[in-house]
Amino acid sequence: MAQRFDILAIGNAIVDVITTETPEFLSGRGIEKGCMRLIGSDEADALYAAMGPGREISGGSAANTVVGMAALGARTAFVGRVAGDQLGGVFTHDIRAAGVAFDTAASTAGAPTGRCLIVVTPDGDRTMNTYLGACQELSQADLDPAMVADAGILYLEGYLWDPAAPRAAMRRAIEVARARGNKVAMTLSDVFCVEGHRADFQALLAGHVDLMFGNEHEVKALYQTDDLEIAMAELAKHSCITVVTRSEKGAIVIAKDLRAEVPGEVVARVVDSTGAGDMFAGGFMAAMVEGRPLDDCARIGCIAAAEVISHYGARPEADLKALVRARLG
Amino acid sequence: MAQRFDILAIGNAIVDVITTETPEFLSGRGIEKGCMRLIGSDEADALYAAMGPGREISGGSAANTVVGMAALGARTAFVGRVAGDQLGGVFTHDIRAAGVAFDTAASTAGAPTGRCLIVVTPDGDRTMNTYLGACQELSQADLDPAMVADAGILYLEGYLWDPAAPRAAMRRAIEVARARGNKVAMTLSDVFCVEGHRADFQALLAGHVDLMFGNEHEVKALYQTDDLEIAMAELAKHSCITVVTRSEKGAIVIAKDLRAEVPGEVVARVVDSTGAGDMFAGGFMAAMVEGRPLDDCARIGCIAAAEVISHYGARPEADLKALVRARLG
Repeated sequence: MAQRFDILAIGNAIVDVITTETPEFLSGRGIEKGCMRLIGSDEADALYAAMGPGREISGGSAANTVVGMAALGARTAFVGRVAGDQLGGVFTHDIRAAGVAFDTAASTAGAPTGRCLIVVTPDGDRTMNTYLGACQELSQADLDPAMVADAGILYLEGYLWDPAAPRAAMRRAIEVARARGNKVAMTLSDVFCVEGHRADFQALLAGHVDLMFGNEHEVKALYQTDDLEIAMAELAKHSCITVVTRSEKGAIVIAKDLRAEVPGEVVARVVDSTGAGDMFAGGFMAAMVEGRPLDDCARIGCIAAAEVISHYGARPEADLKALVRARLG
Repeated sequence: MAQRFDILAIGNAIVDVITTETPEFLSGRGIEKGCMRLIGSDEADALYAAMGPGREISGGSAANTVVGMAALGARTAFVGRVAGDQLGGVFTHDIRAAGVAFDTAASTAGAPTGRCLIVVTPDGDRTMNTYLGACQELSQADLDPAMVADAGILYLEGYLWDPAAPRAAMRRAIEVARARGNKVAMTLSDVFCVEGHRADFQALLAGHVDLMFGNEHEVKALYQTDDLEIAMAELAKHSCITVVTRSEKGAIVIAKDLRAEVPGEVVARVVDSTGAGDMFAGGFMAAMVEGRPLDDCARIGCIAAAEVISHYGARPEADLKALVRARLG
């Protein structure tokens, strides 16, 4: 029987607040440029007060990925927690307007909707300061096992492995998906996630996950090495397909007896690199759903990533389908 | 004694919600392209549900104007009403981060912060659907007469002439400003404002306002004529300086015994024309504050307007001071 969704993603339901600042704005506050860090409510308020005029655009890593997939024609669903406030309304509107099924109940008490305070520097690099808020209140009770069973791919956001309740929900989702014979995919999300959950992530890679996305820094952190080749040799021991993204250098697909490299797309000017990895994963998996070969999947991932870094915000603005047609036919 | 502010503006405190849609999206709903209309809460919800994924950027006509002036070095203040909600927090953060003094107390009950649902069509034209919300709860009690007295220019947003309580506050502000010998400036805002308040606006022009901004359509509506020359002949009877904006054709400055025309700036691509008139007024008045001649004021208005229509959102993104220096020295 055909499944209702090509993919169901579980991730942070977040609205991005994007401003442009100098690199000194970050260094003066001891914030490492280019990374993601979690911050509490007080620090979020203090940092926001110091940031310049902003623009608010829906974000969240896995949410961005499924929005990209929907734009490429995939049937998508998302599970994540917002609060019943204005930013929760914005997130809900935007993901539904993008064609993604989203029905997780908003929390009525507790923390407000999560926000990511994104500082973009003039080089296009983004530094993310995430206040998770309602996101971390996601629990197993929010997960409809029938919906997980009804999606060809279960996609998990590494960022959400950090808080305990969502992690338990994701573990349960993996069980449901595997029992049904569905694929499980995951993103390592950030070096800090890998550092915090190395044993978990290695175990997932060895036995529970079919497809893993990570950038060079993340896969090196996974195997505690400075040498990408050593990390890739470790990855090649698993039947899990790992896709290593390398910014402008493109991507490498690794699995047992498989290695394919594709070059990056040329981008006239990187305005805001937020969402590059998310949109790569979206392009890659949308192409997989269509049954394309893995190297084409990686190429389409690069095309989608190139679109999203050419403007502010982590959601696509141009017609991704048309871009892929123009580049690959 | 030197005054504390170059300008104090009274206007709508609004967050813009911007999406891109086809012209048919508007025509199919009977919405006239390129105009502004006021909508209620239910219609705002229904229209938002139909709109695509959006981006939220602070707006409000007079607020945009003073943000532009602040970017050009003027000392600015703003009076307008938000609610104590997340979008009110966004508006407050953004206008203060732009360097504008903003201290109007947020309402703690009643309507939420005002929103403008802006549909941008691929030609760059914008159609605005405004839910005023908390904006119309602004009243005379929110106005600090000492602050009005302490600003060289009092600037009034025509849009806010519509609801009664803010109109009363603006009338009181005019009295305070004139008693102190300050200048009073105003924007006609939209044809619907002129149609609704023609007698008031004509009376203001004849005796209470020193500087008036309007586009061709608005000044023609003011004198119920289809002929711009007839409207301009009427305007020339007053000592009030009127500046007529004409989109890509530039602007005309008219006063008793004065007429100056300046050409528009060339813009590579109009992405979103929202805020063009607001930013023109901001550039014009910032130059006036510097003591520049009127034709230079109009040129600087055109430079500021050209910047804001080259990207989404009605607030400047580039360095306006540098743009003016590069164009005029």
